[in-house]
Amino acid sequence: MAYRTTIPVRFGDCDPAGIVYFPRFFNFFHGCFEDFFRDCAGITYHHVIHDERVGFPVVHLEADFKVPLRQGDMTEVELAVAKLGTTSITCRYRVFNRATGLLCGESTITCVVVNLDTLKPLPIPEKYRQAFASHLLAP
Amino acid sequence: MAYRTTIPVRFGDCDPAGIVYFPRFFNFFHGCFEDFFRDCAGITYHHVIHDERVGFPVVHLEADFKVPLRQGDMTEVELAVAKLGTTSITCRYRVFNRATGLLCGESTITCVVVNLDTLKPLPIPEKYRQAFASHLLAP
Amino acid sequence: MAYRTTIPVRFGDCDPAGIVYFPRFFNFFHGCFEDFFRDCAGITYHHVIHDERVGFPVVHLEADFKVPLRQGDMTEVELAVAKLGTTSITCRYRVFNRATGLLCGESTITCVVVNLDTLKPLPIPEKYRQAFASHLLAP
Amino acid sequence: MAYRTTIPVRFGDCDPAGIVYFPRFFNFFHGCFEDFFRDCAGITYHHVIHDERVGFPVVHLEADFKVPLRQGDMTEVELAVAKLGTTSITCRYRVFNRATGLLCGESTITCVVVNLDTLKPLPIPEKYRQAFASHLLAP
Repeated sequence: MAYRTTIPVRFGDCDPAGIVYFPRFFNFFHGCFEDFFRDCAGITYHHVIHDERVGFPVVHLEADFKVPLRQGDMTEVELAVAKLGTTSITCRYRVFNRATGLLCGESTITCVVVNLDTLKPLPIPEKYRQAFASHLLAP
Repeated sequence: MAYRTTIPVRFGDCDPAGIVYFPRFFNFFHGCFEDFFRDCAGITYHHVIHDERVGFPVVHLEADFKVPLRQGDMTEVELAVAKLGTTSITCRYRVFNRATGLLCGESTITCVVVNLDTLKPLPIPEKYRQAFASHLLAP
Repeated sequence: MAYRTTIPVRFGDCDPAGIVYFPRFFNFFHGCFEDFFRDCAGITYHHVIHDERVGFPVVHLEADFKVPLRQGDMTEVELAVAKLGTTSITCRYRVFNRATGLLCGESTITCVVVNLDTLKPLPIPEKYRQAFASHLLAP
Repeated sequence: MAYRTTIPVRFGDCDPAGIVYFPRFFNFFHGCFEDFFRDCAGITYHHVIHDERVGFPVVHLEADFKVPLRQGDMTEVELAVAKLGTTSITCRYRVFNRATGLLCGESTITCVVVNLDTLKPLPIPEKYRQAFASHLLAP
């Protein structure tokens, strides 16, 4: 049901406390969103943004951080769709340490779909809607 | 009551959609937290982390993004304390576009106070507690 | 002759060794380039990129790092123009720790001026050329 | 002779001109350095920094950027050793677009080996020296 991709923790993601600086967790979640387009909708995110001029600005998010990650840790980042509206998408992300299987953080992120030239909301284009619909969490 | 600092939006904070990439908002909020230590507790955050070995890992946050920011925008970032526990602090951050006065984003971020060598929770040291206590939001 | 701006070192600029992660030095240099547009050419860099569609991709750089910087250090970043071509600009940047006056790093960065829609080189527009010309290093 | 690793270009690596923001190229090069430790020296870079307290601050670099990279591009990043001193290492990095084979950028980066507690230079520990020695460029 959920989509998963693998992202390594880099030195530059970590702070002087030696652990992933918390804003970088959202890079991992967004990286998963990018890979989801490639693997599940068959299109690069660059093409969506640059050529189709469709964007996904985040309007609301919540996150919990449970276990620190460090340089060299390999993560599994998971995307599932919690809510699919007409012009908005709410995804639930979870990041696991692949070696230990521990859930390190999770986040629910709501974005709206917009025309990047006008910044007006847009119904989710059909070709992406299907990819999101097939990753809906069971109610 | 609330503390405010000024942070410019940099080119490197912005993404191919031309607006601040949402994870970077948390850099602004953390930058405000850093300046708060310097201006309200009279100590650099580096000293706290490196010499006192006290850290503030984030455990939970919520955020709303309302108005995009772009390179060259000057922001006012505001910190107020929503809840001051024994070993945890919940801050409410708001970021304004200084030119327009518009509220662009806000976030409530809860961190725990830990000994960075053991990662065990620690009562908030008295010398910082006072700085946070004097920025509590009215109930 | 040289232009200077002030940029604070943020926690998120520093790595697990506790010092500025070297790629971030280039953020400081680029931040100085951005402020130079605002202060010396009277235009925001965002306007140049977004509305005038003029860009400055870097083609070559050299850098020396001399003294580490840490969170809480306030820097002075300096821009001077080493060479002003028809369609290229070579700037020399230096970053100083404002408290100690020490030179922490320096870099020579050459960019070409391009039309961002065609990526073709462009003669430096007159309104910026003057700002760069008046910051040329003495031969 | 040279070591290669694969690193994807992320949305957050790209700037409002739609291409990789040049400081992020150094994240790719450093990412390759990290993977080199894991794959060629059999140790995580985290362990080297955190447990062995050995660091590799960069003192000098040169770089050329030739072809832009965009979100979704998959890169091959290559490390070869140009010079192996007693307490310093000069690596030559090259980044290729895996789909086109084009060389997008290259950099020569010299770091010194230090004890992270004293910041004093250190002879390269034998267990890493071998890994670097076996990736020396032919003279």
